[in-house]
Amino acid sequence: MSEGETKRPKRRRAGGRAANLRGKGAAIAQLPWSLPVNPDRPTEPLGEDGIAAIHNGAMRILEEIGIEFLHPEALEILAAAGCEITDENVRMERDFVMAQLALVPASFTITPRNPERRIEIGGRRVVFGNVSSPPNCSDLERGRRAGERESFRDFVKLTQYFNCIHFAGGYPVEPLDLHPSVRHLDCLYDKLVLTDKVVHAYSLGKERVEDVMEMVRIAGGLTWREFEEAPRMYTNINSTSPLKYDHPMLDGAMRLARRRQPTLVTPFTLAGAMAPVTIAGAVAQSLAEGLAAIVLVQLVSPGCPVVFGSFTSNVDMKTGAPAFGTPEYMRATQISGQMARYYGLPLRASNACAANCADAQAAWESAFSLWSALSAGAHMVYHAAGWLEGGLCASYEKFVMDCETVQQMIAYMKPVGTTEADIAFDAVKEVGPRGNFFDCAHTLERYETAFYSPFLSDWSNFENWREAGAVQTPERATRLWKKILAEFEPPPLDPAIAEELAAFVARRKDEGGAPTDY
Amino acid sequence: MSEGETKRPKRRRAGGRAANLRGKGAAIAQLPWSLPVNPDRPTEPLGEDGIAAIHNGAMRILEEIGIEFLHPEALEILAAAGCEITDENVRMERDFVMAQLALVPASFTITPRNPERRIEIGGRRVVFGNVSSPPNCSDLERGRRAGERESFRDFVKLTQYFNCIHFAGGYPVEPLDLHPSVRHLDCLYDKLVLTDKVVHAYSLGKERVEDVMEMVRIAGGLTWREFEEAPRMYTNINSTSPLKYDHPMLDGAMRLARRRQPTLVTPFTLAGAMAPVTIAGAVAQSLAEGLAAIVLVQLVSPGCPVVFGSFTSNVDMKTGAPAFGTPEYMRATQISGQMARYYGLPLRASNACAANCADAQAAWESAFSLWSALSAGAHMVYHAAGWLEGGLCASYEKFVMDCETVQQMIAYMKPVGTTEADIAFDAVKEVGPRGNFFDCAHTLERYETAFYSPFLSDWSNFENWREAGAVQTPERATRLWKKILAEFEPPPLDPAIAEELAAFVARRKDEGGAPTDY
Repeated sequence: MSEGETKRPKRRRAGGRAANLRGKGAAIAQLPWSLPVNPDRPTEPLGEDGIAAIHNGAMRILEEIGIEFLHPEALEILAAAGCEITDENVRMERDFVMAQLALVPASFTITPRNPERRIEIGGRRVVFGNVSSPPNCSDLERGRRAGERESFRDFVKLTQYFNCIHFAGGYPVEPLDLHPSVRHLDCLYDKLVLTDKVVHAYSLGKERVEDVMEMVRIAGGLTWREFEEAPRMYTNINSTSPLKYDHPMLDGAMRLARRRQPTLVTPFTLAGAMAPVTIAGAVAQSLAEGLAAIVLVQLVSPGCPVVFGSFTSNVDMKTGAPAFGTPEYMRATQISGQMARYYGLPLRASNACAANCADAQAAWESAFSLWSALSAGAHMVYHAAGWLEGGLCASYEKFVMDCETVQQMIAYMKPVGTTEADIAFDAVKEVGPRGNFFDCAHTLERYETAFYSPFLSDWSNFENWREAGAVQTPERATRLWKKILAEFEPPPLDPAIAEELAAFVARRKDEGGAPTDY
Repeated sequence: MSEGETKRPKRRRAGGRAANLRGKGAAIAQLPWSLPVNPDRPTEPLGEDGIAAIHNGAMRILEEIGIEFLHPEALEILAAAGCEITDENVRMERDFVMAQLALVPASFTITPRNPERRIEIGGRRVVFGNVSSPPNCSDLERGRRAGERESFRDFVKLTQYFNCIHFAGGYPVEPLDLHPSVRHLDCLYDKLVLTDKVVHAYSLGKERVEDVMEMVRIAGGLTWREFEEAPRMYTNINSTSPLKYDHPMLDGAMRLARRRQPTLVTPFTLAGAMAPVTIAGAVAQSLAEGLAAIVLVQLVSPGCPVVFGSFTSNVDMKTGAPAFGTPEYMRATQISGQMARYYGLPLRASNACAANCADAQAAWESAFSLWSALSAGAHMVYHAAGWLEGGLCASYEKFVMDCETVQQMIAYMKPVGTTEADIAFDAVKEVGPRGNFFDCAHTLERYETAFYSPFLSDWSNFENWREAGAVQTPERATRLWKKILAEFEPPPLDPAIAEELAAFVARRKDEGGAPTDY
């Protein structure tokens, strides 16, 4: 008998694990909150020579070409530390760079307003965050549209709802109906009220950064001194590849560093466009850019936590369009992981795809991105849920689908037991060649928790699937996000704190918010 | 600037790599035929203790419980070798087992009628085969239906067409319109005429096995002596878990062994149904079953090539339905890889999924299966293209989609260069902080071959994708398989050999083919 001919066992019991976890108003049965530990040795595309070659390339860029820092104060700090400055170009010696990198903590925690949602960055931990910054959003019922506050709030609720999403990254969709001068105030208010997970500040001008830090401080019920005692939030900055940092990015990183808050430094190096067409060259440039900003942060605040973000991919050489989840993307991510470990830096990666709808291409590109993140030893996976169209659209359905695959990755990271009970010799002996394991004691003791139970996959056979309407994955996801949003309850928040946050927002709006000509 | 806001570079040149590879009647631009080398260290969920525990479990099953061999001659051979036999139950000591396993070659080749399509099994090689044995097939235009010869031939043509599919496994769909007594004759005739890749014989009775061996011998223009000099084809056998081998499976393996042709031994151990509910237990049982048949093959023909097939997955404990590409499936595959290396056996894995249509779930389950196969160090990936519905349906669209992801895995396995030219210091210096890399010499010298170019992914932006009809992945796949089949040309075959094959088929049909009461 070949495997294709094997009969499926008959349905034997209703309910089971998933049913047990339902109820109590939970829209779906999901894994509990946890901080996953990645037990696998990272995949290492490069040997020691390859690592040395990329390191040398990055160092030569820093020593001989230099990085532009479009920020006078940053230039002063770098000059004072002995860097060679020509106009806005900064060159630094490798020994100096390595000495600053040695100050970076290998791991750290970020504690949001709910201390139970504290995340750990580093070691073998890996945490996942929502899609960040798309200008558009879409769902199957309303189609694709420019982002607005209602959708923004929906995605924040999904971020809060799913236990596999550990932190709230940038805006899951840009609420373009909110004026840029006050958008950060309304958005952070929503985020701090609708979630109790780690939040982030965009480095888009001093007012925004200072406002967000203050709001996070208020939400946590902290004094400034308490706020600065440990990481409470973070920012993410991107270089303007090739070889340049714009003012707001550097300014934000420096402001957070002064309050001991972490910065993720993520060069967006598209090989063949903003970086060399070779993977090794693109990663070397990305490292040079990333390390330069990390050095600045260490000069401002020695030992301040930072993360190196890998975002090297390739473009379609026929059209120039960026691609994600490609073979080159996977290898670049893994090599960035090797280099991050070489420098002792925590690593950020992403769950990205180029697909325009939540179809099979989106799923395989995202699966490959996720795989590369885990096999790279990434500590933070950005854009883990909801990303479509190369980051230009947040999809409600994709968010739910991604949470399914992220959950599967979390289950995959659970260690496999090999105790005597796991080996199950007695069960095999009991069942023998003429039985099956459905009803043996060994199974009955374990069946409720033995296997990961998906909330979105449909494992019914074709006939049952067709009779139930042949519902495909995105349509199943639509049902789920509607149910989740309908039943959503925000996490507890002291009314006095909510009031203080609202008053802060009102005052800052009265003051005009942030300038929009940054 | 956050990455979501980054502008996509404009289209800059028409054509490019993919365009260059088109033409000459090739329906799509695909990678050339190659035997990929997997450069990565396998993922190892277990430490030495875990390996020892599973080994001990498998050995205790063989020593203390035993495996049923429903084949009198097999029982005689095993008894003569010193195994302990009770009725049809065979127990064997671990030292004896390990001595037989020591005879298994670590790697071998299989040479089909076209020696240029020879495949290598073992070492760091990995080869991919088509979906095998579904009773149904489907495509978006004609829907789902029972398999028939026309569809069988279509899938054989797709198997031949795609260079990333290295061998023709079992029937890619069962042609149920052909009578079982003669089905193997027509099927092998089609396979040997429409492909020049490695083929397989079902172990479903002596006539079928002997007929297929003879047809492969004729197709290769070989004498029997030449046929037996090296592997020319293979069979795959499944245990009837738990702990049993049916007559036809053992008979086929023994017939091939006598002619020095390889057998893949693939226990289909569904944890919680046909095997213990624990991964370690299911793998231990699967090994006991697999090793028992491998021992038999070695007794019949010492040193004959064999492959251990991993096919351990879990069932949905709510319904009993088998699941594939799950976290447990991935770990079971990787652990099977560790154990196969422990025993010095080449490994087979699969690209399986439970989904009922070629949607996102199918893609992520398949991506996870593929990932687990590669990270397990598998040497043969069965069902690599076309599998749906837990193996009950061969999908035309899924076949094309899978070839896209298999190609991406092949590109992923290409080593990453870190020469001075790869590091691209001079290009970075030339471009500097105000340029881009589109038109620099370093890019222009490499852009045609720098990146993997997909044939199915759509990387256009949303507006272009929508204007072009918002075509989703399966519909794009439909266009491709129609084009491939319309343009298909069978590989060259000496007309005298084709005539000899046809005459053999006619004679064997006159003789009544094979009995159908096996």
